[in-house]
Amino acid sequence: MVKRYLSVISLEEALDLLNREFSPSPSVEIVPLEQAAGRVTARPVFATYSVPEVHLAAMDGIAVRSTDTAGASEQTPVTLKTAVRVNTGNVVPADYDAVIMIEDVWMGDGRFTIRKPASPWQHVRPAGEDIAESEMALPSRHRVRPFETGALAAYGVTSLPVLSLRVGLIPTGSELVPPGTRPGPGQVVESNTVMAAAYLRSLGASCRRYPVTPDEPGQIRDVITRAVEENDLVIVSAGSSAGTRDYTAEIIAELGELLAHGVAIKPGKPVIIGRIRGKPVIGMPGYPLSALTVLREILTPLVAAHGLPAPAVELVAARLTASLHSDVGIDEFVLLAAGRIGTAWVATPLSRGAGVQMSAVRSNAYLRIPSSLEGFESGEEVPVHLTVPLQHAETAVLVTGSHDPVLDHLAEVAQRQGVEVHSTHVGSMGGLISLKKRDCHAAPMHLLAPDGSYNTYFLEKYLPGEEVSLICIAGREQGIVSRERLSFDDIPGRPFINRQKGSGTRMLLDHELAVRGIDAARIPGYDREVTTHLAVALAVKTGEADAGMCVYSAAKAMNLAFAPVAKERYELAFRRETLEDPRIESVIDAVRSVEFKDILNGMGGYDSSLTGELRQLP
Amino acid sequence: MVKRYLSVISLEEALDLLNREFSPSPSVEIVPLEQAAGRVTARPVFATYSVPEVHLAAMDGIAVRSTDTAGASEQTPVTLKTAVRVNTGNVVPADYDAVIMIEDVWMGDGRFTIRKPASPWQHVRPAGEDIAESEMALPSRHRVRPFETGALAAYGVTSLPVLSLRVGLIPTGSELVPPGTRPGPGQVVESNTVMAAAYLRSLGASCRRYPVTPDEPGQIRDVITRAVEENDLVIVSAGSSAGTRDYTAEIIAELGELLAHGVAIKPGKPVIIGRIRGKPVIGMPGYPLSALTVLREILTPLVAAHGLPAPAVELVAARLTASLHSDVGIDEFVLLAAGRIGTAWVATPLSRGAGVQMSAVRSNAYLRIPSSLEGFESGEEVPVHLTVPLQHAETAVLVTGSHDPVLDHLAEVAQRQGVEVHSTHVGSMGGLISLKKRDCHAAPMHLLAPDGSYNTYFLEKYLPGEEVSLICIAGREQGIVSRERLSFDDIPGRPFINRQKGSGTRMLLDHELAVRGIDAARIPGYDREVTTHLAVALAVKTGEADAGMCVYSAAKAMNLAFAPVAKERYELAFRRETLEDPRIESVIDAVRSVEFKDILNGMGGYDSSLTGELRQLP
Repeated sequence: MVKRYLSVISLEEALDLLNREFSPSPSVEIVPLEQAAGRVTARPVFATYSVPEVHLAAMDGIAVRSTDTAGASEQTPVTLKTAVRVNTGNVVPADYDAVIMIEDVWMGDGRFTIRKPASPWQHVRPAGEDIAESEMALPSRHRVRPFETGALAAYGVTSLPVLSLRVGLIPTGSELVPPGTRPGPGQVVESNTVMAAAYLRSLGASCRRYPVTPDEPGQIRDVITRAVEENDLVIVSAGSSAGTRDYTAEIIAELGELLAHGVAIKPGKPVIIGRIRGKPVIGMPGYPLSALTVLREILTPLVAAHGLPAPAVELVAARLTASLHSDVGIDEFVLLAAGRIGTAWVATPLSRGAGVQMSAVRSNAYLRIPSSLEGFESGEEVPVHLTVPLQHAETAVLVTGSHDPVLDHLAEVAQRQGVEVHSTHVGSMGGLISLKKRDCHAAPMHLLAPDGSYNTYFLEKYLPGEEVSLICIAGREQGIVSRERLSFDDIPGRPFINRQKGSGTRMLLDHELAVRGIDAARIPGYDREVTTHLAVALAVKTGEADAGMCVYSAAKAMNLAFAPVAKERYELAFRRETLEDPRIESVIDAVRSVEFKDILNGMGGYDSSLTGELRQLP
Repeated sequence: MVKRYLSVISLEEALDLLNREFSPSPSVEIVPLEQAAGRVTARPVFATYSVPEVHLAAMDGIAVRSTDTAGASEQTPVTLKTAVRVNTGNVVPADYDAVIMIEDVWMGDGRFTIRKPASPWQHVRPAGEDIAESEMALPSRHRVRPFETGALAAYGVTSLPVLSLRVGLIPTGSELVPPGTRPGPGQVVESNTVMAAAYLRSLGASCRRYPVTPDEPGQIRDVITRAVEENDLVIVSAGSSAGTRDYTAEIIAELGELLAHGVAIKPGKPVIIGRIRGKPVIGMPGYPLSALTVLREILTPLVAAHGLPAPAVELVAARLTASLHSDVGIDEFVLLAAGRIGTAWVATPLSRGAGVQMSAVRSNAYLRIPSSLEGFESGEEVPVHLTVPLQHAETAVLVTGSHDPVLDHLAEVAQRQGVEVHSTHVGSMGGLISLKKRDCHAAPMHLLAPDGSYNTYFLEKYLPGEEVSLICIAGREQGIVSRERLSFDDIPGRPFINRQKGSGTRMLLDHELAVRGIDAARIPGYDREVTTHLAVALAVKTGEADAGMCVYSAAKAMNLAFAPVAKERYELAFRRETLEDPRIESVIDAVRSVEFKDILNGMGGYDSSLTGELRQLP
């Protein structure tokens, strides 16, 4: 039996449907004042008494009747019969209407003499100066700022009604194991409701995660029924596709109404919109980035309709560094690493795999490719939605080129100096081209020239005459990674895992094969490409391949054998004009830091004596 | 005995001193993943295993060896001997290297026939596609975004080290009562540590509030000693001035070192910077807005040095609507209501009283007047720091003019439509001038003309020929408020509380006095001015005055007697060109809403039959 989606609807139709079918019915929660920051008031908040309730002295001095002080001057000082010593904050007694600063008072024999008259109400904080009894301190629908809790405490408010939305999250799937359990083959950690709960909580919702429910219609029916009773909104995670074990749509239809099954978004198409006992029940797809897209594009507007709007997303116009093709009729969302290079924003698309959560972690922006378009071309300026504050995105340094695990550590040292390194792994040649096009700030590379030198030969060839600087990250050892201590000469005839064309490691391999006169055709798996050193080591570790070429640190991280082949110069190239960009300065500082050198020495396989050396071209 | 400040230092000197004297020593806290959103990582976070750990099917279909499929075509279908049915997410068995979608497979007799070859690794999610074992998922010093918790759960992370800073908050002062206690005369609710805790928690600190300590040196010494032991940073609230009962500076000097006493900021000058056992101990002044300024300007940089930076503050260039004079040598911070009028930002200064917390609540921005300047003139463009996100500030509607308690309710209805009304009470004439200068979006007014009409006469006089629209908020009753049912004719000879010059209510009073031939000199307190109806009612309630003139709702809110005097037309004037501004549309919608009418009718003293009527000038 092949199940079918209801006719797939557009994102606009889905949002219209939500608007039309559900009337907002926010729930209200009373929270103690200490927990109110960031929440949205459900009703106006009024002062329960005036602050201050009576007139107070605003200075240290004496309280007086201003009429008693008339005529006082240097020539005709006045000694007051009725005056009272007050400190700042003391009550000004009834019938007194001014305070004279202690500095202007001469005291003797318990009497006060003044040489200047007081004007009525001078240095008095009148009753109600801050707020009057019954006055509105906060309107409803106001997001409480942290410092406002102090004012509310002063006005006698100890708890307040805030908007809430009880969201029930039901993870379904027989393959799921709870967080903290190491998944066996074919098992998956139930992480989507963790993400959804954290995301929806950040909007002000109260989330409850139900236990993992296996793909058993009876059990799913029971937990949905219970969750609908206990919440304002129910999200069923996974089981929303049209596969043989996807029961969510059927069960929603049985318990209530299925309003939509399938929305033309990518990732996220297998979303379900249903209603049970008047409440929205949403089927959220199982791929993490599909789930994230549904949270952001469909659940956020639904939650906002209940008065819990998401913080506004900032838009910048950025130049795309790669073409993105997409199907007409589908709104596609692509994660990006965006950064400002000079005065222009550029954006590099990240992996579009719906299972690659690291794309979301690595991204600071996303792009919507509208359903009316077939995509965007490389170089086009597109509107980019930032997922971090603009000032934060301003700290992004786009590093595009050759991969090395130590780049993450460099990023980590640079982060402490306030810049955020976004690495994209496209190999040394890819990085060089990216630098040429001004699509990145810096390009890590290790390109072996025919003369045995590194990097400068290719920079001079591809960026002739341009002013480029190179800072050495480290000397490093490349070699053969294996489970069984293989050497380079053992490669032929054994399953191999290769790096992508244009990567320095691939070029080094080809160079070594040529030197030894080994034909690539004798190496099974020569065409199987991955893009990082760790991916090479992992393929060897899992047994997919017997050998591959990578840096020592990757072999060590996976506890594999390593046979050194060559020592190379791993450098970071950047345009000289950016040397004065404080972000680039921070990256250079990070490369040259003692901390980074210690990390290199600790990881092994790196020669930190070259680290930090600066070379200039031409 | 008069104590003295140490020599007062500048804000720059204070920040330098903090930088120089304290080396950042962030404490680390391990939090469960569910509580990690918004926190800053203290160390990098690594994947504990690869995700996926083995190759998985990315589609429903069959797993095959790609070499077995070579040569398959429509003409020469291939029936596979070794193939396995797989669903999305199933493990691709060892030795298999591709998945063929179920739609491209013909099944019969338990055998699979295909008509097109499979390329190696098609529809396979390779092991480590998302992340490889040992790979860095997050660097340190990374603020965890809510959705990232899902990725971390998937990577086997259940808790993570985040930066923390244990802050001890000690409220001191014999006049303090704990929140929730109604303060007696001269008592103050201890609200500053509530504010400080909420504010510092929003930066990621862990705050502990100690019980209120009276102004007893021994007790203060004990609690400071204990707090220094238990925290990384100690804040002593109040007692930091140079008054007779301000012991904080002395005690810090005794237990450690007093590094600074007095910083040239306003509000906030009586701040103390000290060190005990190597830890910073800060004396925070007692006036709420002084405390807020010290939190923002001095404690935030100190906390940021420990790795907990505050969210960036956005700056806009705004035109000041009033002159602000300030002393050279002092950095003064003035709270503002800022809004965009047309394409220009304008900013209206709020009360500078350090005890008026409502100024902070009502503000969405602040201005720093640098110590080198004597201030800014009205009309000058100044850099304004927003205390809400820019998009939020974009929703601000500046309403300047006559006060009425119902304005807060109108603001409250408008807020639900997404606009934030900022009211400034300067009286009807003040509002009219503000509208003329384009310093506000709308001006509420009730100006009685010689011919008995309201508002239009004055608009035509002061904004001749300009296109202005008026929407009626309500007809409303003004009258005499008193404790003892006084009528207008009872006023002479009794203590009176008046409204400020230029307010419609003051003009109405003067008109009624003239009509009745009563000389203002016969009214004691005629010169005592306050700026709101509620302030008038409050002065009568507290016994400061026997009578005043205000609207019925204010008298009712304070349970006072009310003798009607006149019915007037309370209208909101705005420039016609702004009629199409969606924010003004929202305000008009709010005026005309059923909700607002219900509020008017419920408050009493308003005639809602006029509400929503639009008039046009000329």
